[in-house]
Amino acid sequence: MQQTQIQELKKIVGADHVLTSPEDLYTYSYDATPGHAHMPDAVVIPGNAEEVSQILKVANANKIPVYTRGSGTNLSAGTCPTKGGIVLLMTRFDKIIEIDLENLVAVAEPGVIVATLNAEVAKSGLIYPPDPGTVATATLGGTAAENAGGLRGLKYGVSKHYIMGMEVVLPSGEIINCGGKNVKDVSGYDLTKLMVGSEGTLGVITKLILKLVPAPEAQKSMMAIFHDLDKAGQAISAIVAAKIIPATLEIMDNATIRTVEDYAKCGLPLDAEAVVLIEVDGLPEVVEKEAAKVVEILNKYDGQAQLAKDAQDRDNLWAARRAALPALAKLRPTTFVEDATVPRNQVAAMIRLVNDAAAKYNVTIGTFGHAGDGNMHPTIVCDLRDEEEMGRVYKAMDDIFLGALKLGGTLSGEHGIGLGKLRYMEDQHGPAAMNAMRSIKRALDPNLILNPGKLVGEC
Amino acid sequence: MQQTQIQELKKIVGADHVLTSPEDLYTYSYDATPGHAHMPDAVVIPGNAEEVSQILKVANANKIPVYTRGSGTNLSAGTCPTKGGIVLLMTRFDKIIEIDLENLVAVAEPGVIVATLNAEVAKSGLIYPPDPGTVATATLGGTAAENAGGLRGLKYGVSKHYIMGMEVVLPSGEIINCGGKNVKDVSGYDLTKLMVGSEGTLGVITKLILKLVPAPEAQKSMMAIFHDLDKAGQAISAIVAAKIIPATLEIMDNATIRTVEDYAKCGLPLDAEAVVLIEVDGLPEVVEKEAAKVVEILNKYDGQAQLAKDAQDRDNLWAARRAALPALAKLRPTTFVEDATVPRNQVAAMIRLVNDAAAKYNVTIGTFGHAGDGNMHPTIVCDLRDEEEMGRVYKAMDDIFLGALKLGGTLSGEHGIGLGKLRYMEDQHGPAAMNAMRSIKRALDPNLILNPGKLVGEC
Repeated sequence: MQQTQIQELKKIVGADHVLTSPEDLYTYSYDATPGHAHMPDAVVIPGNAEEVSQILKVANANKIPVYTRGSGTNLSAGTCPTKGGIVLLMTRFDKIIEIDLENLVAVAEPGVIVATLNAEVAKSGLIYPPDPGTVATATLGGTAAENAGGLRGLKYGVSKHYIMGMEVVLPSGEIINCGGKNVKDVSGYDLTKLMVGSEGTLGVITKLILKLVPAPEAQKSMMAIFHDLDKAGQAISAIVAAKIIPATLEIMDNATIRTVEDYAKCGLPLDAEAVVLIEVDGLPEVVEKEAAKVVEILNKYDGQAQLAKDAQDRDNLWAARRAALPALAKLRPTTFVEDATVPRNQVAAMIRLVNDAAAKYNVTIGTFGHAGDGNMHPTIVCDLRDEEEMGRVYKAMDDIFLGALKLGGTLSGEHGIGLGKLRYMEDQHGPAAMNAMRSIKRALDPNLILNPGKLVGEC
Repeated sequence: MQQTQIQELKKIVGADHVLTSPEDLYTYSYDATPGHAHMPDAVVIPGNAEEVSQILKVANANKIPVYTRGSGTNLSAGTCPTKGGIVLLMTRFDKIIEIDLENLVAVAEPGVIVATLNAEVAKSGLIYPPDPGTVATATLGGTAAENAGGLRGLKYGVSKHYIMGMEVVLPSGEIINCGGKNVKDVSGYDLTKLMVGSEGTLGVITKLILKLVPAPEAQKSMMAIFHDLDKAGQAISAIVAAKIIPATLEIMDNATIRTVEDYAKCGLPLDAEAVVLIEVDGLPEVVEKEAAKVVEILNKYDGQAQLAKDAQDRDNLWAARRAALPALAKLRPTTFVEDATVPRNQVAAMIRLVNDAAAKYNVTIGTFGHAGDGNMHPTIVCDLRDEEEMGRVYKAMDDIFLGALKLGGTLSGEHGIGLGKLRYMEDQHGPAAMNAMRSIKRALDPNLILNPGKLVGEC
């Protein structure tokens, strides 16, 4: 970028809100994805939609790449400024504008942290259900752009199900509003849902209208230990087939169990093939009834089920699951948390496929994740500096992602495609669907300034 | 269309599946929307996706308009072949391909009637929740293309929330698959959600992957009579604010009450300003608890609430609501059922606005509808042959739709835009958003062959 362009940006947002020092540029050169980093030319921090509009007009006129970013917790290099240009940092958009109790709707700016919104609506007995693992640091805008999911996806769905409308700045600089507070709305193409999960490639979100739901009155947690992975898989399908939709239905495979036990000493049996953790929630009467039924099903499939007796017991039970990622990450310098996702009844097959890939290429992979919705997290630990090892890691990834597709799965359940999984996109969607997606990108962003090269690739 | 083109189509689907007699063409010249009719050149009835692909290739090469149609229950002229060309009749796509109980998913062809699918999944204790009033005749493909809603929208959402994936033929003739059986899926732009509600302007759906949910074990219905419309509106908001989400929450205004009573003699008080009908569903324990709370709230706002004692009582209660449309339609030769929708807390204001428009232009309008989700059905009865009256009707419509927008509402909650509401689209979305929508249309359908001129207008 030229100095005159930097000056232009400073005029728009004020000199304090344009960062160009090498330390600042380095700080925003990467996100939570290993193996991707690139220095931007400037970090620009707008304060309102009008400023975003003016920034995009400058970028569009000069074909400067723009990478919108919140907290940078992204796991698919979605916010990495791979072609230089502008990192558009949205952290000043930090206001909760309205909590509308009559319509059960919140209006908030995209820089608000997810947990902050939840703390605010909890005062009214409500929740905003999407709960990625990064809930304490991720922004609403980031979770919207990535269609973030989380542990409650099975029962409550993902971000897409809760984003009712938004204000968006298009690459042209035009500010549009889509959706609104209406529960039913079929007026025009659903631009809201198109923007959600578009990974910052189609527009910059400057306001969000979010659906809230009543907080469940009661919860009940349970754990089951399986010595046969297939039986764990069958139990998971059987629970849902019995018409019980748990809030959370998690699984950890043997590699994860051993790592977690070594790290946290919570008493997990080292020879178990799978640990399944479940929480049902709702009205107290329903929760009691459903918990008993779940325990019955778990035991029927030889899962040694135990029910949490009290809040303390519940915390202990979930401590093992919470330890999964830090325990695995501690093993080696580099951690790839993937999210290949399969239909629920393919969870056991998917874990087996990951184990096979780990053995075949001699790489360390622990798999845990949201078994209820088939959203697995095969977590590969390695050393990015070891070229030979990385060759094996990438081959294992090929097996995992292409294998998930063969099981009727998808490349990403909640982390997005970004750059990380771009090379498999045509395998999943085929050339015609990829062309359709790229034509939408070109239609809305003809100069290809927003997060270029990501999600749908080069256009 | 030229005879050679008709011959080409006959080669693709067989001569029996191309209709060109004047009677046949007349039959498919209109749908359920008053005031719109146009003769097509041919009605083509394909039997599989490959045939659809070949038909679209012929149409695309020759720029022949194509109007995809199921049962033609559309209320916004969505399936009316306004520029001639081909009516693509999808009724031969009538197979339920799979009911997958482990993943709670159905795979079905678009010509399957919604009620047929529901009867089939009911055998497994499941429901497919979208339930437009036309559930016994409408096809899955039509309800997908229109994003149909219905009475259960408040609790269960609309078609969009249940369509997980589809096979679609693009205007180019290319067959693509989007989405799938995965509960979480963030791989690429969400073409599935873009297609849902796109009113046949972007592609032809040839297969649907649908989410099913467990059928509720119990229901409880109640009715309340309000002599003050504002209090009815406050009661509706208070129920939801009390964190009760009824399956159904319906309202009828005074004009509808009087017409229904005259037609069905079910004992409604003629001077009531509103009748509110509610059904809660779920587990028996929950239903009891919620029903008691709802009655308490209704009475608090001076609604004289009565709870249905048994199944017979419940049927009687809902008979009044079911009579609303036929009773109104019987008054005059022409019936416009509109679906201007507002945020839940604006329902009373919306009904008042409709009454004002009716008085101002001296037209007969009864309003009933899904108060819980703000989806009102102002129903205008008139005589299409009376030009002077129609002038007043269209002016009343202007007041109603533009008024709904001023209340933060939307032009359509569930019937779609089609041609009927096209003239207000820019009022709702503004020129930039309309341009964005039109650019998407042009990107996917550059020759503008699919349902041209509808939803987003001329491109």
